[in-house]
Amino acid sequence: MKLVRYGDIGRERPGLIDAAGVLRDLSSLVSDIEGKALLPESLARLRELDPADLLAVEGAPRLGPCVGAVGKFVCVGLNYTDHAMEAGQPIPEEPVLFLKPTSCIVGPNDNVEIPRGSTKTDWEVELGIVIGKPAKYIAVEDAYDHVAGYCVVNDVSERSFQLERGGTWDKGKGCDTFGPIGPWLVTTDEITDPQALDMWLEVDGVRRQSGSTRTMIFDVPTIVAYVSQFMSLQPGDIISTGTPPGVGLGMKPPVYLAPGQTMRLSVSGLGVQEQRLVAAG
Amino acid sequence: MKLVRYGDIGRERPGLIDAAGVLRDLSSLVSDIEGKALLPESLARLRELDPADLLAVEGAPRLGPCVGAVGKFVCVGLNYTDHAMEAGQPIPEEPVLFLKPTSCIVGPNDNVEIPRGSTKTDWEVELGIVIGKPAKYIAVEDAYDHVAGYCVVNDVSERSFQLERGGTWDKGKGCDTFGPIGPWLVTTDEITDPQALDMWLEVDGVRRQSGSTRTMIFDVPTIVAYVSQFMSLQPGDIISTGTPPGVGLGMKPPVYLAPGQTMRLSVSGLGVQEQRLVAAG
Repeated sequence: MKLVRYGDIGRERPGLIDAAGVLRDLSSLVSDIEGKALLPESLARLRELDPADLLAVEGAPRLGPCVGAVGKFVCVGLNYTDHAMEAGQPIPEEPVLFLKPTSCIVGPNDNVEIPRGSTKTDWEVELGIVIGKPAKYIAVEDAYDHVAGYCVVNDVSERSFQLERGGTWDKGKGCDTFGPIGPWLVTTDEITDPQALDMWLEVDGVRRQSGSTRTMIFDVPTIVAYVSQFMSLQPGDIISTGTPPGVGLGMKPPVYLAPGQTMRLSVSGLGVQEQRLVAAG
Repeated sequence: MKLVRYGDIGRERPGLIDAAGVLRDLSSLVSDIEGKALLPESLARLRELDPADLLAVEGAPRLGPCVGAVGKFVCVGLNYTDHAMEAGQPIPEEPVLFLKPTSCIVGPNDNVEIPRGSTKTDWEVELGIVIGKPAKYIAVEDAYDHVAGYCVVNDVSERSFQLERGGTWDKGKGCDTFGPIGPWLVTTDEITDPQALDMWLEVDGVRRQSGSTRTMIFDVPTIVAYVSQFMSLQPGDIISTGTPPGVGLGMKPPVYLAPGQTMRLSVSGLGVQEQRLVAAG
């Protein structure tokens, strides 16, 4: 299933995209695509539906973040060898983790703000894991049981805030609008191998990142199990799994984003995001 | 006012502690001590109440985290010169920020879990700021307008996870139960000078930390304004402002927590926390 949230900011309604690409409303079945609605038994119930029985939504409403009420947004850094090299960082021996505050989450096609004082706003296409079942101290072999599905994440980053302002990376990872997720939460039945997904990102139509989840250092089950050793995971939590090479920081000389530009990005089977860059008000 | 949340885990009700120390129920006025209930106009309405008109709560129920539905939990690291020195870290030129996932938040007297594999679980008494009004790119001189009140925070930390496992500090700061907050959210009318509060922490009755918010490097308004340059703040967000010296990491040799021990800690005017340490299940 391709689950979505559609409508105005803060008033999104749950929906799904049917096989013909039609947006259909799920409000009569779940109040939102979040938390309990992502538990295995809830997703199983939704899977039994005939989408043709659901009301088709008219027009082309805005798509919101594909998961609502995200509890936490964990990210894995430097999870592609060649990206670690371009970032001038050592290859990690175990996953590098950081957090994005959930206040940075926006819809897949919402504007992305260049923060005040920023000169180094950068892009990062990533595969996002959406948790569907509580996970604490789980084993790698059980990890997939805790995954509801996947989505595209743009882990937008301000490199000066991240790397030149002291302390941890968090200052440069959590600015408002730095976390577009979606367009769809694609449940695991449609993504048989999350380690065989192509991914790309373009800025103003120029291809900047081309990669595949095949070249991740730590794979999806390893990451889920690993994170669960340090903090429990709840349904609706998101883990973003790191970016392949091709970010602005890695270019010689580095190239960063400016207001008026457009980012387009995708992971195979998970849809396309498109964001316009604007100056923060 | 001293606002509290009382009752079983996940079913806390809002309340206040009156001048005589009696817990009184606020359920008829606000659904929870969170988000919109912390806006200035909402707190002004609560302040007009005569607590004697509110139902006194019988018995001695558990106190939950003093703020519900916390959106984000931002922490300032190394904000006391002498703590930075004991931690072997340079004095920061601007605030060091990191995030604790909200899944680590527990009540002030709930058990604290020593994570599996931990040998270096440590304590940190801190002054917590509770945001009461949205804040984005605010100036230092306006910062107090965005503060609803203050609470005690124990920024429990696993030093090996934080410092020896690669990447940022977040692995060692967000384990379940690593964020006791409360007992009370004390509104700003009762804390006329947040930079003149004594603080202490004891382990099994032995005083380990003694400090005062007077010796913070970056004060409350500076911190609130600073954080708002990197991410917007919403009512119910918490910023913990760093710990004075006396943590286990700083002792020679270092001393860490073990199951069966008890931490007691307080900040003047904000009440006392007491946690028993248990092994994570």
